[in-house]
Amino acid sequence: KVYRIAAIPGDGIGVDITEAAVKVLDKVAETNGTFSFTYTTFDWSSKAYLQRGYYMPDDWATQLRAHDAIYFGAVGWPDVPDHISLWQMILPIRQQMNQYVNVRPTRILRGTRAPVSQLQEKPGDLDWIIVRENSEGEYAGQGGTTHGHAENAVATELAIFTRVGIERIMRFAFETAKGRPRRKLTMVTKSNAQRHGMVLWDRVFYEVAKEYEGVVEHDKMLVDAMTVRMVNKPESMDTIVATNLHADILSDLAAALAGSIGIAPSSNLDPTRKNPSMFEPIHGSAPDIAGQGIANPVGAFWSAAEMVRWLGKGELDTVADQLMQAIENVTGEPKTRTRDMGGSAGTEEVTAAVCAEIGKV
Amino acid sequence: KVYRIAAIPGDGIGVDITEAAVKVLDKVAETNGTFSFTYTTFDWSSKAYLQRGYYMPDDWATQLRAHDAIYFGAVGWPDVPDHISLWQMILPIRQQMNQYVNVRPTRILRGTRAPVSQLQEKPGDLDWIIVRENSEGEYAGQGGTTHGHAENAVATELAIFTRVGIERIMRFAFETAKGRPRRKLTMVTKSNAQRHGMVLWDRVFYEVAKEYEGVVEHDKMLVDAMTVRMVNKPESMDTIVATNLHADILSDLAAALAGSIGIAPSSNLDPTRKNPSMFEPIHGSAPDIAGQGIANPVGAFWSAAEMVRWLGKGELDTVADQLMQAIENVTGEPKTRTRDMGGSAGTEEVTAAVCAEIGKV
Ligand SMILES: CC(C)[C@H](C(=O)O)[C@@H](O)C(=O)O
Ligand SMILES: CC(C)[C@H](C(=O)O)[C@@H](O)C(=O)O
Repeated sequence: KVYRIAAIPGDGIGVDITEAAVKVLDKVAETNGTFSFTYTTFDWSSKAYLQRGYYMPDDWATQLRAHDAIYFGAVGWPDVPDHISLWQMILPIRQQMNQYVNVRPTRILRGTRAPVSQLQEKPGDLDWIIVRENSEGEYAGQGGTTHGHAENAVATELAIFTRVGIERIMRFAFETAKGRPRRKLTMVTKSNAQRHGMVLWDRVFYEVAKEYEGVVEHDKMLVDAMTVRMVNKPESMDTIVATNLHADILSDLAAALAGSIGIAPSSNLDPTRKNPSMFEPIHGSAPDIAGQGIANPVGAFWSAAEMVRWLGKGELDTVADQLMQAIENVTGEPKTRTRDMGGSAGTEEVTAAVCAEIGKV
Repeated sequence: KVYRIAAIPGDGIGVDITEAAVKVLDKVAETNGTFSFTYTTFDWSSKAYLQRGYYMPDDWATQLRAHDAIYFGAVGWPDVPDHISLWQMILPIRQQMNQYVNVRPTRILRGTRAPVSQLQEKPGDLDWIIVRENSEGEYAGQGGTTHGHAENAVATELAIFTRVGIERIMRFAFETAKGRPRRKLTMVTKSNAQRHGMVLWDRVFYEVAKEYEGVVEHDKMLVDAMTVRMVNKPESMDTIVATNLHADILSDLAAALAGSIGIAPSSNLDPTRKNPSMFEPIHGSAPDIAGQGIANPVGAFWSAAEMVRWLGKGELDTVADQLMQAIENVTGEPKTRTRDMGGSAGTEEVTAAVCAEIGKV
């Protein structure tokens, strides 16, 4: 079986870590022997945009649909305003490829130094899957500006929630929770201050919850109080479902609590499988360390593992688990950790070490 | 000088801690001897709402304006949907009393156990003032629902940002930063994904920043990355300015990092002083511990100290500082700490201890 991967390295360290991920993916395939990857690498980046005026060509969607999955590095560069770079690439891909779920697992990998002392003592206390609504809500893209530069300027952001959009993410979250040993779902909202969209969000959650009565335990948190619970009672949660913006914020906090933003993966999924899903580490392009060969590729490898799992439809779970084991064998060793994990290894060293481990497990 | 205080205990532990705050305020006044407080206590609560159908009477604004300041406990009770309780009391007060600034100082009080190990070693690393936009943005209240219970239901939340609203909060934030030893302001935004209102927010920030060139250092953070910085590099920040929702989330995280949500204060200010400002601890009504006499009154006392500072217009700063000292003398003692601070003292014990300390300092 050959899996066709659309690789979009993008900007900054996105390039370094995509290169590293490809090496690891090839090593996984080679070791396994039953499948392989082919890659189409797209030069869609801020650099290209500055030269030719666009990130993606008009037929970008058709081009991507000729692939089984998308591997994405990072986008964002100081010379281009962020709202332009993001709305010309990553956000249209998520929305038009119907990737309405963004799955963000977080746990403390071996060798990671968690900042919270409870988690230093009991790393197992943090083991979450954040299910992020990835297609609407605060990222619907609507809103506008009137009297832009005048003293009476008004600008708006319109968050849009649809029953269809809420129901499908809730169902995905309950199914995810059901597949985990603890069978527990925490829903995040801000329906006390935001009384329209968030109230619909709550209502649909409770409707779907009825179908899982006795199967999945559920509770509700306000987003502000949720940050407190994440810091103080990490062990009290398992699967978490939240809106596009709330989950964006909470997943970065989760990665920080787990020890480094450099290790965190994300899967942008179209559960209908009609479009390719997209896998990307949650860190950004990190202009400050780009091109220095020191970016942490662990988040990229973990994202690659999730891609393998997704492509395999259940048949490559062992392969993905073995890759995770290889990654943890490497993070477990002080001499193969990058700077953000307290070591001094470079991207290539870590990559080589993971490839070597893949051969062993 | 007599200061007229409108006291709104509200719901749950709001009642316990308002009672405690009044005792402490009276003790402060009595010890000082140059001023005193009179209180009008309003029974605006969820309990009252369930009996008579409203939280506040029609002339609530007029009634409040007959006071120099408002002291607020908490609102929210399981029998009333949160979006009703909040939009019938706390949010209209903030908006109609022109309290467009919400100031949330956070630091690690003596005796507080910070969850992050860096802060256990160097508590001084966390010393922030969060300046929250308190009148518009994501809490503007607009939006609506169409096809509410049908399969094509759509609900929206409309965040509104005005140049006037942004400019005044930025100016307040820069002035606050200017008055602090480090003279540093960090602005939080999500202008990469939210490309209308947040872009205006950024633009006005940079405009105002020009006026403080060479006086106040400034930088910009995306709200998701901000959570990471708060956990990992608390010492790198001083004053922080953010939107209504972002600052709501970040200030709860700040309180958790500082050791307890029970200690955090907030000041809802009308800087024009045409309307009374409002002081409230940031914790909620905590139905689970209400009426048990165990609520932590420290956030309430700190809020009271901020009220004294505000009312004094610079002349009662020493009095407010002495109250803070009295509070820290008490939190510094294991036997006068409440449960959330690792002790077992009740609200009354802590209150009595603070009153005793006020007499001494
Ligand atoms: C780059 C940006 C649009 C993105 C987001 O906010 O979704 C990033 O922060 C993420 O979490 O994937
Ligand atoms: C009670 C609620 C409306 C409030 C808010 O979100 O502003 C609270 O969380 C706060 O932080 O003061």
